[in-house]
Amino acid sequence: GVIRLRAMAEKGVLKYPIIAVNDAYTKYLFDNRYGTGQSTIDGIMRATNRLIAGSVFVIAGYGWCSKGIAMRAKGMGAKIIITEVNPLRGLEATMDGFDVMPMRDAARIGDIFVTATGDIDVIYKECFNLMKDGAIFCNSGHFNVEIAIDALKKMSKSRRTIRDFVEEYTLSNGKRVYLLGEGRLINLAAAEGHPSAVMDMSFANQALCAEYMVKNYRKLERKVYSVPEKIDAEIAKLKLRSLGIRIDVLTPKQKKYLESWEMGT
Amino acid sequence: GVIRLRAMAEKGVLKYPIIAVNDAYTKYLFDNRYGTGQSTIDGIMRATNRLIAGSVFVIAGYGWCSKGIAMRAKGMGAKIIITEVNPLRGLEATMDGFDVMPMRDAARIGDIFVTATGDIDVIYKECFNLMKDGAIFCNSGHFNVEIAIDALKKMSKSRRTIRDFVEEYTLSNGKRVYLLGEGRLINLAAAEGHPSAVMDMSFANQALCAEYMVKNYRKLERKVYSVPEKIDAEIAKLKLRSLGIRIDVLTPKQKKYLESWEMGT
Amino acid sequence: GVIRLRAMAEKGVLKYPIIAVNDAYTKYLFDNRYGTGQSTIDGIMRATNRLIAGSVFVIAGYGWCSKGIAMRAKGMGAKIIITEVNPLRGLEATMDGFDVMPMRDAARIGDIFVTATGDIDVIYKECFNLMKDGAIFCNSGHFNVEIAIDALKKMSKSRRTIRDFVEEYTLSNGKRVYLLGEGRLINLAAAEGHPSAVMDMSFANQALCAEYMVKNYRKLERKVYSVPEKIDAEIAKLKLRSLGIRIDVLTPKQKKYLESWEMGT
Amino acid sequence: GVIRLRAMAEKGVLKYPIIAVNDAYTKYLFDNRYGTGQSTIDGIMRATNRLIAGSVFVIAGYGWCSKGIAMRAKGMGAKIIITEVNPLRGLEATMDGFDVMPMRDAARIGDIFVTATGDIDVIYKECFNLMKDGAIFCNSGHFNVEIAIDALKKMSKSRRTIRDFVEEYTLSNGKRVYLLGEGRLINLAAAEGHPSAVMDMSFANQALCAEYMVKNYRKLERKVYSVPEKIDAEIAKLKLRSLGIRIDVLTPKQKKYLESWEMGT
Repeated sequence: GVIRLRAMAEKGVLKYPIIAVNDAYTKYLFDNRYGTGQSTIDGIMRATNRLIAGSVFVIAGYGWCSKGIAMRAKGMGAKIIITEVNPLRGLEATMDGFDVMPMRDAARIGDIFVTATGDIDVIYKECFNLMKDGAIFCNSGHFNVEIAIDALKKMSKSRRTIRDFVEEYTLSNGKRVYLLGEGRLINLAAAEGHPSAVMDMSFANQALCAEYMVKNYRKLERKVYSVPEKIDAEIAKLKLRSLGIRIDVLTPKQKKYLESWEMGT
Repeated sequence: GVIRLRAMAEKGVLKYPIIAVNDAYTKYLFDNRYGTGQSTIDGIMRATNRLIAGSVFVIAGYGWCSKGIAMRAKGMGAKIIITEVNPLRGLEATMDGFDVMPMRDAARIGDIFVTATGDIDVIYKECFNLMKDGAIFCNSGHFNVEIAIDALKKMSKSRRTIRDFVEEYTLSNGKRVYLLGEGRLINLAAAEGHPSAVMDMSFANQALCAEYMVKNYRKLERKVYSVPEKIDAEIAKLKLRSLGIRIDVLTPKQKKYLESWEMGT
Repeated sequence: GVIRLRAMAEKGVLKYPIIAVNDAYTKYLFDNRYGTGQSTIDGIMRATNRLIAGSVFVIAGYGWCSKGIAMRAKGMGAKIIITEVNPLRGLEATMDGFDVMPMRDAARIGDIFVTATGDIDVIYKECFNLMKDGAIFCNSGHFNVEIAIDALKKMSKSRRTIRDFVEEYTLSNGKRVYLLGEGRLINLAAAEGHPSAVMDMSFANQALCAEYMVKNYRKLERKVYSVPEKIDAEIAKLKLRSLGIRIDVLTPKQKKYLESWEMGT
Repeated sequence: GVIRLRAMAEKGVLKYPIIAVNDAYTKYLFDNRYGTGQSTIDGIMRATNRLIAGSVFVIAGYGWCSKGIAMRAKGMGAKIIITEVNPLRGLEATMDGFDVMPMRDAARIGDIFVTATGDIDVIYKECFNLMKDGAIFCNSGHFNVEIAIDALKKMSKSRRTIRDFVEEYTLSNGKRVYLLGEGRLINLAAAEGHPSAVMDMSFANQALCAEYMVKNYRKLERKVYSVPEKIDAEIAKLKLRSLGIRIDVLTPKQKKYLESWEMGT
């Protein structure tokens, strides 16, 4: 999406201005963390009706989506293992109280695996054979390439659907492992996607940015713009108001102090 | 159930010995807390697809079921309010970091209400009029008398089913409030009840107690017995083994110390 | 204490009635969980100034004290390992999302160890050699026999105090391990014991039970009594009032329903 | 600090290149959240020995420091109230399950107040009179201007030090409120600042950036530079290694996929 548009803008072939709605705080901070967090757990529960308390939950990646999933899986009583390729995120996951290890090690002990990395083969061929009998895995991040499904199919003796969205693979080592929702986004496959209380902010971004472009099109170049900070803040304000929540307002004295301090004078 | 049997035992009219499986630790500690905790949240999410993060969750009661529900609702990002009639439990809820207040006060600020008390009229007539437009309520504790549904029906201008398990009541003050699953146990009405990983221990209690009675019936009187401690512990051991978890074993020296200490010699 | 008194009562040698204040809900539920939980963490932080986030916290036992410690260590960002000898408690710890394993296994991976079991040799000789360089251990449960300090001393090449309440032992394998507060209750050794907001309820139990005995001594036998339920509930009520918290009161209709239901009629 | 240096760079008066160590992920993400989070709670406990469980904790601001404090205060069992002037952060705090309200409202119900905003008069004159008898406040964010101490002094009938770092102010309305550590950073005033496990990364940034400048000074202009990403990642890697934690490494195939996807081709 927006990556290609940025490339087009750089090459000067973009035909009209674009606002990258995805980059708004009121979009990605809330959508990915609270939306994906809840709906992933929701999808797994609907698909499997498994007890999450006491289970070992392996989450691939520790970006915003994964953080949301980890937060909620922990909140449901799971023990969390994070896998990462980025040392900064691996360290953050550690400090957040989670176990961090390579997927190969996690494969042996996980009960439920969720991928949310944006890359391919995150759960790769060798992992399946290491898994416990009964291991469950699904994807909540990108699309159905995060789990090496083709490899899984080839190495399985048989497979069958045992329940809506639950496919059982019997490996040549005799163990059975379970793929949910064909590896597609589990919150869309097995649940209902994000709750409306998250989507409303995303839609508000689209609506207010469209209005902004109509009003300002004369000043806008054929570029990819970020969502104007004012719109982002306005949506947060409206959302708070709809929740009946009031916040503080800077006094003139505070504003002045803050500016002088930030200015370094 | 068992209350009536105990009364019969006391009157000497019980015809054969009974083991009260419900009282086993491996039954009520796990079933009520982890089972009801998860499945209540599951039922609410399936019925409503509402974002739980940031919502105000009012839970009536702070017994084992309510504790499980509070633990999970908090884990999903809700702000928790507990209502109680028992000061000890009210205090415990406070120390656990939850807001505690009368239902009348909670009614004004709650987004989602769950009753789990075992009593009637826990959400009573006056509460409905105080609720916010859009308030949702359901029952997870006893049966459909915890919410004063008859009163609600009488005070509503109209009602309609807007989604499976979600009935909208329009009050005479114009506000709309939502009853889930007709006030029946929400985890059974809208979800699938307890996960098997909780039920297995309950069934194990039934099976092993039946075996125990067959083996010991000569010694048993026409009474209501508790589940033998050995069976309770045995089930916990089997469950741990099935999870691949090992625990420590007392050494003879430790056992001796413990006995001498407990004996006070 | 009370164990010996109960033995005396059974033998008929008790000279006057006793009320076992320790058994009051308002004593043991709050003192052990919230009091010990906070003050143990407090003691460890004061003694070591170690970052708890990301550390592996091994807690021996899963009784009320240990539950409090686990709850708070988790709240400070630690990864928790529980060791137990009781399968029911081991299972409960698992369902609460904690790792459960024998002390021998935990010894290899723990950063900070706390014992709270009431038994001896919980961290035993073989464990010290398995520990990581830099491992820290202390006791918060019983008294200084939970850690095998004598064995530790014998197997160490040298020891020195490196900071108040922190004694460094250099093992023959070259690794250094750290004993806090000489193995005595860490919350008393290095911090200030329980906060007053917990002790007030314990003292209230003593005061109100003394008053009760003065008023009722004619009716009391030479036995060990539990704290009267009314006193326990009264203290909880007073505590809630002091916190400005109100709770619901059963209506006559609710009371009647509850009784009829509990009676099974 | 760095703000002034940036201004100097813009005006062309900077005499040599600068690396802004504060901006490193391995500095601000960890220092502010995990360091300040723990040490603030530590400072408050040492200063007051107050039970945090069940108390109402008001935190001014929801930046990284405040997030750390909120996370830890919640972990110790407090009920959290956040005050903010930024709607995005106010909304984030809401979704994280915290109460959000203006300071004036929070003043009436808070037990312990912590400021961490970077602005002045965050707890302002009018707030003190609204507070409960016994309210405690301290600062953990900027320096001793966040609390309007001068106003407090003027409106108080008397003040006295009741314990190290605890100053009691008796207001003209008769209520007593408590200022900790003279409003200076509470973690430095009453505790020992950040644990070494957080500071090590900050020092590593300083050391490796100094080395970097020595090696690259010919290429560097008289500007303010960010910490090179490689150094930031290297420190995270070293830290993980010191903790004995391994993470995954991208395979060539994964790397290629990621690049092609990010490139949009």
